Amino acid sequence: MTRAALAIHGGAGTILRSQMTPDLEREYRNGLEASLIAGWNVLDRGGSSIDAVEAAVTSLEDFPLFNAGRGAVFTHDGRQEMDACIMDGSKLRAGSVAAVEHVKNPIKLARLVMQKTQHVLLAGDGAIEFARQQGVPFENDEYFFTEHRWLQLQHARAEGVVELDHTPEELELLEESEIEATPADQHFVFPNDKPLGTVGAVASDINGHLAAATSTGGMTNKKFGRVGDTPLVGLGTYADEICAVSGTGHGEFFMLGVTAYDVSARMKYKGLDLIDAARETIEHLTSIRGEGGVIAVDSHGNVALPFNSQGMYRGYIKDGRPVTEIYR
Amino acid sequence: MTRAALAIHGGAGTILRSQMTPDLEREYRNGLEASLIAGWNVLDRGGSSIDAVEAAVTSLEDFPLFNAGRGAVFTHDGRQEMDACIMDGSKLRAGSVAAVEHVKNPIKLARLVMQKTQHVLLAGDGAIEFARQQGVPFENDEYFFTEHRWLQLQHARAEGVVELDHTPEELELLEESEIEATPADQHFVFPNDKPLGTVGAVASDINGHLAAATSTGGMTNKKFGRVGDTPLVGLGTYADEICAVSGTGHGEFFMLGVTAYDVSARMKYKGLDLIDAARETIEHLTSIRGEGGVIAVDSHGNVALPFNSQGMYRGYIKDGRPVTEIYR
Repeated sequence: MTRAALAIHGGAGTILRSQMTPDLEREYRNGLEASLIAGWNVLDRGGSSIDAVEAAVTSLEDFPLFNAGRGAVFTHDGRQEMDACIMDGSKLRAGSVAAVEHVKNPIKLARLVMQKTQHVLLAGDGAIEFARQQGVPFENDEYFFTEHRWLQLQHARAEGVVELDHTPEELELLEESEIEATPADQHFVFPNDKPLGTVGAVASDINGHLAAATSTGGMTNKKFGRVGDTPLVGLGTYADEICAVSGTGHGEFFMLGVTAYDVSARMKYKGLDLIDAARETIEHLTSIRGEGGVIAVDSHGNVALPFNSQGMYRGYIKDGRPVTEIYR
Repeated sequence: MTRAALAIHGGAGTILRSQMTPDLEREYRNGLEASLIAGWNVLDRGGSSIDAVEAAVTSLEDFPLFNAGRGAVFTHDGRQEMDACIMDGSKLRAGSVAAVEHVKNPIKLARLVMQKTQHVLLAGDGAIEFARQQGVPFENDEYFFTEHRWLQLQHARAEGVVELDHTPEELELLEESEIEATPADQHFVFPNDKPLGTVGAVASDINGHLAAATSTGGMTNKKFGRVGDTPLVGLGTYADEICAVSGTGHGEFFMLGVTAYDVSARMKYKGLDLIDAARETIEHLTSIRGEGGVIAVDSHGNVALPFNSQGMYRGYIKDGRPVTEIYR
């Protein structure tokens, strides 16, 4: 049982103590802890790592403060296009979806792609058609919209501590998203409303089998059908027999660095341990000016959570007691 | 000038001498040679590797026998969704498009993504919107359709030597694609009409800068918005300062093996040379039951073209004289 371990993230980026109220921090930590417990409940009863990461990420998707599932950000034209990937390291199988709308839990859909198709990645309308065939739960705009409003309200309350950070694009988004703007909307954005919000989980089960899962609402105001690293095997998500990795950060740099697989490559080809491999991967990310972090676990239950941003919502659990962190 | 080298592929798979007429083989070799010359003309006048791979792949896209651009296969619902990726190794930048229709040269659109956006991958309608904004040439169905008919005719002519290989899905495709079936259609498929058709190029220029480009029409009869490895950095296409790689084969396994980047990782972390690294990567692909091959070049102008399938349309040029091969 000593090898069982789970680590999660809820996004990395500019997370400053000065931008956070005690109440808001408590809420974030509650969301992280709920996810850790959900995943641990699977591992603790001898369940598989793939079930554990699905449970942990589903919990994060359902929690409105993180940019995945409920809480996904809006694209340039006011839609919520979500991406997710899940990978079973022991079987070297993966399933991913990109640009799906209205699917309640994209990570569950990704798992169905892995289990029910010969493909790895389904995108757009085709992925949604597959979701309907499989009978996965859909939610209407209200489900997402209401929570987004709630989130706006939370931050409006924290008015005095939220950084002024309005770019012209963000103002344009507020106009185009057909959300009735409040005075707070016009002056404040959310501290995590950056291209850096993503959730993910990695786990090692009692058999030493590894799995990784990542889910995101993408970039606020993204255009032209941009797809980031999250749904792409080896880039934002990867698992094999050596390690499992989930990334969060500025996706384009995670793609160029082949970031998730790079941790595994440094372990198997260079002989590094998990901690050093993950650290070197983030050092490389820094060298190409990419911002973000990874969570990683090996088959011995070692956990690494390196990042180069100002903060990363993160946590791990090894013995039933959840540990969560936000800042450096 | 000794470092300049270019290698190309036109797809890998079940290519048997017994399925080929002398005339058809000559046509394939002509297509490969035209591409090699197009790329070499760039390198020979001191041009960059990124311009060379774009020229070589554009030539392959325009050639109707290969499954990219003109000649792209049909999806389950009778459409041609094309993917492409180009990567500049010296700058570690990349651009990709997935599921674009009617774009004459997807590789040129991928380069515009690299040069004109902050993103790496644009997909579907968004990518097409971007293409229209950039004013890239579009072609109507006739451009593709006519050539597909021409291709069918070529193979119908070779009736006696084309393998009988009709799956129920392929018959269904013929019914759904609204192509008026000829007797030949009903009994024969093209020897390269497998999920294995793709074109690609890798190059090293006189400055030792590396680049890779890959373009595909995808899988015949693909469903649900399937995206393969071709447009994905590190999976079907990769270039850095160490090597440039383009893959062709059963895309899902190239994704799971992170195949293109794996060559670079074996060189930089394991200290292998290009030939050994590419060979080991294909051995790994074989071990996970993936079929296909890669073309790879390093900054010294060494070239590797390993594959595990029965054949791979391929070629290279180092001194102005094109060399082409099809079988093992």
